[in-house]
Amino acid sequence: MANRKRIIVIGGSAAGPKAAAKARRIDNDAEVIILQKDADLSMASCGYPYYVGGFFNDRNQLLCTPAGVVRNPMFYLNAKDIEARVNTEVTAIDRKNKIVSCKNLANGETGTLSYDKLIIATGSVPRMPPVPGVDLQGITTLQSMKDADFLRKIRDEGKIKKAVVVGGGLIGIETCEALQLAGIEINVIELLPQLLTFLDWELAKLVENHVKSKGANVITDNGIAAFLGEDGKLTGVKLQNGTELPCELAVVAIGVRPNVKLAKEAGLKIGELGGVDVNEHMQTSDPDIYAVGDCVETTSRITGKKVLAPYGDLANLQGRVAGENAASVNCVTFPGTIQTGICKVFDYAAGSTGLSETAAKRLGMADIVTVINASPDKPGFMEGKLLVTKLIADSKTGRILGAQSIGPGNVSKQIAQWAMAIQGKLTVEDLINADLPYAPPFSLAIDHCIATAHILQNKMKGRMTGISCKDVYDKLNAGEKPFIIDTRGPEEFEEVRLGIGETLIPLGAIRKRLGELPEDKNKEIICYCKISLRGYEAALALEGNGWKNVKVMEGGIMAWPYPREK
Amino acid sequence: MANRKRIIVIGGSAAGPKAAAKARRIDNDAEVIILQKDADLSMASCGYPYYVGGFFNDRNQLLCTPAGVVRNPMFYLNAKDIEARVNTEVTAIDRKNKIVSCKNLANGETGTLSYDKLIIATGSVPRMPPVPGVDLQGITTLQSMKDADFLRKIRDEGKIKKAVVVGGGLIGIETCEALQLAGIEINVIELLPQLLTFLDWELAKLVENHVKSKGANVITDNGIAAFLGEDGKLTGVKLQNGTELPCELAVVAIGVRPNVKLAKEAGLKIGELGGVDVNEHMQTSDPDIYAVGDCVETTSRITGKKVLAPYGDLANLQGRVAGENAASVNCVTFPGTIQTGICKVFDYAAGSTGLSETAAKRLGMADIVTVINASPDKPGFMEGKLLVTKLIADSKTGRILGAQSIGPGNVSKQIAQWAMAIQGKLTVEDLINADLPYAPPFSLAIDHCIATAHILQNKMKGRMTGISCKDVYDKLNAGEKPFIIDTRGPEEFEEVRLGIGETLIPLGAIRKRLGELPEDKNKEIICYCKISLRGYEAALALEGNGWKNVKVMEGGIMAWPYPREK
Repeated sequence: MANRKRIIVIGGSAAGPKAAAKARRIDNDAEVIILQKDADLSMASCGYPYYVGGFFNDRNQLLCTPAGVVRNPMFYLNAKDIEARVNTEVTAIDRKNKIVSCKNLANGETGTLSYDKLIIATGSVPRMPPVPGVDLQGITTLQSMKDADFLRKIRDEGKIKKAVVVGGGLIGIETCEALQLAGIEINVIELLPQLLTFLDWELAKLVENHVKSKGANVITDNGIAAFLGEDGKLTGVKLQNGTELPCELAVVAIGVRPNVKLAKEAGLKIGELGGVDVNEHMQTSDPDIYAVGDCVETTSRITGKKVLAPYGDLANLQGRVAGENAASVNCVTFPGTIQTGICKVFDYAAGSTGLSETAAKRLGMADIVTVINASPDKPGFMEGKLLVTKLIADSKTGRILGAQSIGPGNVSKQIAQWAMAIQGKLTVEDLINADLPYAPPFSLAIDHCIATAHILQNKMKGRMTGISCKDVYDKLNAGEKPFIIDTRGPEEFEEVRLGIGETLIPLGAIRKRLGELPEDKNKEIICYCKISLRGYEAALALEGNGWKNVKVMEGGIMAWPYPREK
Repeated sequence: MANRKRIIVIGGSAAGPKAAAKARRIDNDAEVIILQKDADLSMASCGYPYYVGGFFNDRNQLLCTPAGVVRNPMFYLNAKDIEARVNTEVTAIDRKNKIVSCKNLANGETGTLSYDKLIIATGSVPRMPPVPGVDLQGITTLQSMKDADFLRKIRDEGKIKKAVVVGGGLIGIETCEALQLAGIEINVIELLPQLLTFLDWELAKLVENHVKSKGANVITDNGIAAFLGEDGKLTGVKLQNGTELPCELAVVAIGVRPNVKLAKEAGLKIGELGGVDVNEHMQTSDPDIYAVGDCVETTSRITGKKVLAPYGDLANLQGRVAGENAASVNCVTFPGTIQTGICKVFDYAAGSTGLSETAAKRLGMADIVTVINASPDKPGFMEGKLLVTKLIADSKTGRILGAQSIGPGNVSKQIAQWAMAIQGKLTVEDLINADLPYAPPFSLAIDHCIATAHILQNKMKGRMTGISCKDVYDKLNAGEKPFIIDTRGPEEFEEVRLGIGETLIPLGAIRKRLGELPEDKNKEIICYCKISLRGYEAALALEGNGWKNVKVMEGGIMAWPYPREK
């Protein structure tokens, strides 16, 4: 067997084992070896927050096949004919001689292994804030099985009362939920003005409100200045604005950076964003070396530019591609990412695909049009739940560039639909008459995503002038005095209202009460209701009666992220 | 106001009111009139089964806006400036003079109304079996608000003990669930060999098994020969095979036919399938008359042929198109349908989009390839639930032609994804690396739909030879003796097993137990496991060791629709 092709995979979390399994399936004769630094293999790392949060109790579920078999070296050998060496750190890659050096972390032994093809799946390392006290006991990340074990123990012991989560991104929010469910008092600290930067501000603010409604506190626009401690143990954090928050636990979740140490030392090309540079075959600058997962830069399918997209699903897909190419010849390609992501936020979800408005503007895209739609996912009689969606399209071609959605409704279905639409290069016009699965237990007759496209088309055709809640708020703060109409019924108004100087004129009464409207037909009028469907109909009635500057506040009260009168 | 354009809409259920509302929004000056035969307007007719089944109790929820306002003539007048006349039957259309004749069903008065543009939304009428006794008391459909009231009263009174549902289509199954939840003993009678003909047989059979597991009986391949009665009241049904089933209630749900009486009498062109013929503008053979909803024939976006697609969502979309064109000029088009549908089946759902294999073959399509995939929608630790999906693609281009999915998992999301993929003309290759929203509360790292594409690609690339459960069953019944391997673990085997002559060889042991396999390397071997992922890996191992005729039973035990040993 001396001339068997040897494929070595460095890394045993997500992308690595997938690459190894695919390589084995493609080439039954090859020798496939996984070298994994950790003790565990193929950990479902995206599941850590749910283990910490007590959604399930058996730690092995993070390490098992669906049939309940732990994915240990024995499993890999017997079921997949793959040699997996755990506790084995690769210390160097000798590209010239095609040899990796490794070290057994259990016994300190070192050795070398030659390879024909190498697949680097070294993942990412969590960023840590460059502040004093970062080494205090009680500061962790939620990046490894060890971290998950540590935090789960905290949950089970129930001793810790106060914690901060540093960073309001995806993992920060998931960790916040997990710890809050463990009965710990939480402060989430975010340096930027908003949580979840894959969302635009308006939607992120609604998420923030929801997090706060669950009892966790959120502090934005503020970073960590120092971790405070006594006797080597964390006792609190000091924020950049001087505030001190006592806490016994801090979970740092300010993002990850590609772990490219080995690749860099081996002289492989590193991209501008700090990830390993790979082509569409997932091949590095060395033709015999592939790289996959969090350690690489991925191409955006929308902009063609490189991005960092450290997502578990992409890692798996990239692993498949590299595994096949390494085992055969370069025959399959990875098309890149549209940066689709989703996050559970207590009983809400928040998801995004494609570009946010912020991202599009940052890229210098000028011709974009957006809309916010708030409406339920199903009929009220089937207990429909709210979705607030923001859609971003190219104003010239109508092509859908991005969609984001939050709320208690079926966000995951909405984002999946939009992701597929973006991958099919569909336009707003295509969505207008989309044929989607309808029955009352599952959707409205006109699905939320189709309705969103309808509203955006109304804007694009000039039939509706939309204004965001934020723009209304800023307008009022700037001292402007538009005439504002809440078009709901009196009972709804008694229960919930904004209190921004609005006049209550129910839609059904509007044609009879035109006399109450500004005489000046050019006066700015802003209409809304709970979700602004009635607001839209009222605006049409006013326009039909000669008013020329009528706007609809998009998403209505359901999208209003500021405090309300009641 | 003598020269206001008058747009008359005949029909006030789904498509009609939507057309009227859109016409009003497009032309604020037009006179828009809905003529509705029933007493109610804008009924959420797809919600009837859930009202009957007790999912909610307030009948008004079927007639209300989300804000709780009943959509009666006063609502249409005040909120939408639309005149809606209920209890008003249109008896004739005089196209030459552009006049409709109508009759007030409440007081018998008749009259005429001239129109500039007419929109026909007369819906469909339920088919009734041409058998004796069809007029007996106790036989109903579930097509109108009156039907819903009648059946809901039966639920509330709790007197009726036995019922039959005639027809195992979408409404038949929904009605079966509703009545079963009302504590009534149900027999569903279906003339064809399967329920839900939008599914292929294998998936329909799994649905049938599920319906039976809920306590409702299903009889396929058998039709109604007669309704039996005493004193004018239903006492039972006689089936075509002679069986008599006592029952006090029969709900007929054998489909609907377009209600084209008015259109036909007016000389409008009727299509081959019996629906009003319309062009892409939803315009009939008379340029001043549009038609929408269940009464029309719709174009299949896949085949270009006309189909009947009496779905509430399409009715709404078509209404929008006709409303805009009638109010303006022909400026918007309806692209047709891909026949996406979904149905709740107790705690399962069953959905389909595009073509089934049966439909594709009926259309003479020879170059198709299919696969069945059974796998969960989410990780086990997040309580993932099973999905069984069948994917149909063009074997030459890889273009996705259809997908159907059943099970307790999130079927609606899967079908929505596939529907969007079909509308984006995506191929299997496009799905292989799709970027979809992943987090453990929402999906697997490789979503079920991507995994389905992976398996189909493996088949298309010749890496896996699949065989359906049905083909295995037929093979065994024909006396063939393939070597069958169940690749699960012994504990799983003790709990559940097929008992079709299989040998238990767990995947992890297969490379060591090759000696137990047939010596003849050409012998047919069939591998499976719970979902046939381990079955696939075992097949690869056997092929790697020289066996040349190894097949994987697609979907494994989870897709096996026949009785099991245990």
